[in-house]
Amino acid sequence: RGRRMPDSNARVVAATAVALGAAACVLASRWARCVLRRRASVELLYFNISGLGEPIRLALTLAGQPFVDRRVSFDEFQQLKPTLRFGQVPCLVVDGVELFQSAAILRYVGQAFDPSGTLYPRRDLALASKVDALMDQVADMLVGRKVYKYKSRFGFPDALFTPELTQTVERTWRDETLPRHLGFFIRCLAESPTGWLAGTRAPTVADLLLACVLRTDVANAAPLPQSLLAFVDAVYSLPAVKAFKQAEEAAR
Amino acid sequence: RGRRMPDSNARVVAATAVALGAAACVLASRWARCVLRRRASVELLYFNISGLGEPIRLALTLAGQPFVDRRVSFDEFQQLKPTLRFGQVPCLVVDGVELFQSAAILRYVGQAFDPSGTLYPRRDLALASKVDALMDQVADMLVGRKVYKYKSRFGFPDALFTPELTQTVERTWRDETLPRHLGFFIRCLAESPTGWLAGTRAPTVADLLLACVLRTDVANAAPLPQSLLAFVDAVYSLPAVKAFKQAEEAAR
Repeated sequence: RGRRMPDSNARVVAATAVALGAAACVLASRWARCVLRRRASVELLYFNISGLGEPIRLALTLAGQPFVDRRVSFDEFQQLKPTLRFGQVPCLVVDGVELFQSAAILRYVGQAFDPSGTLYPRRDLALASKVDALMDQVADMLVGRKVYKYKSRFGFPDALFTPELTQTVERTWRDETLPRHLGFFIRCLAESPTGWLAGTRAPTVADLLLACVLRTDVANAAPLPQSLLAFVDAVYSLPAVKAFKQAEEAAR
Repeated sequence: RGRRMPDSNARVVAATAVALGAAACVLASRWARCVLRRRASVELLYFNISGLGEPIRLALTLAGQPFVDRRVSFDEFQQLKPTLRFGQVPCLVVDGVELFQSAAILRYVGQAFDPSGTLYPRRDLALASKVDALMDQVADMLVGRKVYKYKSRFGFPDALFTPELTQTVERTWRDETLPRHLGFFIRCLAESPTGWLAGTRAPTVADLLLACVLRTDVANAAPLPQSLLAFVDAVYSLPAVKAFKQAEEAAR
């Protein structure tokens, strides 16, 4: 009993130290992200259009990550193409490492550069998987359109598509495929307590991807229902996004 | 100076405790995976074909995660369809939570159930992004085929595709699109020091996806080059995969 106090002190010291160790460890990944973020040289290679590059630009912007927004002409791209691993853009070059495929890039940006961890919820595996699935769902929605726009790239000979055939395909996609897919997203948004697709408190990369696609590819094909217009507006009203679009406009 | 020993002891205790705290924290995520893995009720819903379900079956098998391999007929699927969030299978139900889209499911399986962490390298963000991009690349390869096989689902009216047109599209995909995409994967494998797509010491979910797709969709359309045959064989020779395929065969 004479040793009770020192023991008790040692226990307090040990418990505090364990807590500090654990806290340091929990903070380490966030800290690592901040370090990575400060040091990284980041360049996005894409055409001077919205397309698949825009959601990446918005993600980098919302993460507060400085980047070189390199916009290539189609001629420049043809020269670059053989040097790119899969012959495709968007390509994000981070400290010399080339990243490909827009969803894979978005997932990386959300994890590597966003100190708030909201763009990609990597800690919650089921939620992260939902964000992934939503991004793939957006890609699925565009398959028909992608194929009739870039026929030969997907094995559809250009010569096959008479103007009449192209028109029929376009109409079927717009009137049948598109509304079915939009219905999924409208339901997601209606069921979300926060107005974002995955029910997160702030937008994820899936929200950015869908908003960009709705604003261009989809809106060009058919008028958007009110709920989706409001969703696009919510993304483009985020202060950082607004500032980015203004700077982009000013640079024209 | 009289208090030196106790102080020193306290320091040793504190240092040890910090180390223990940090170690406990590092081990926590692995431990969490093991707990999740033991407790989880996992059911895979898919047709009794290889398709998009097979890589998920192989991933669960390689992770050592027990699962109900529920194979539905096309009639059963039509009844289930309205109850599924996006009207699609594969669907992985983990403790009542439904996960969708095969790549999103694969990513989840690799992270939630694989104690070795090799199926999906989540700790290395650039490597994980490469695995993601490779999976999207596999999906891109199949777009043309998917569209001419499930025309109306992507906005191509069935009536449009005369047998002659279908044949032309099939031939163009097989002779032009497919070899270009296969070339990317052949190069990846040739450059890999380990024989796996992303250069990892063991296969990732991208290897499983590519092997399954090559073995069925691609091999049904065109003969595989030797290097890809060897790659498929490497995946299907993994002891756990071999045992799974034997059990599947025996259950027929």
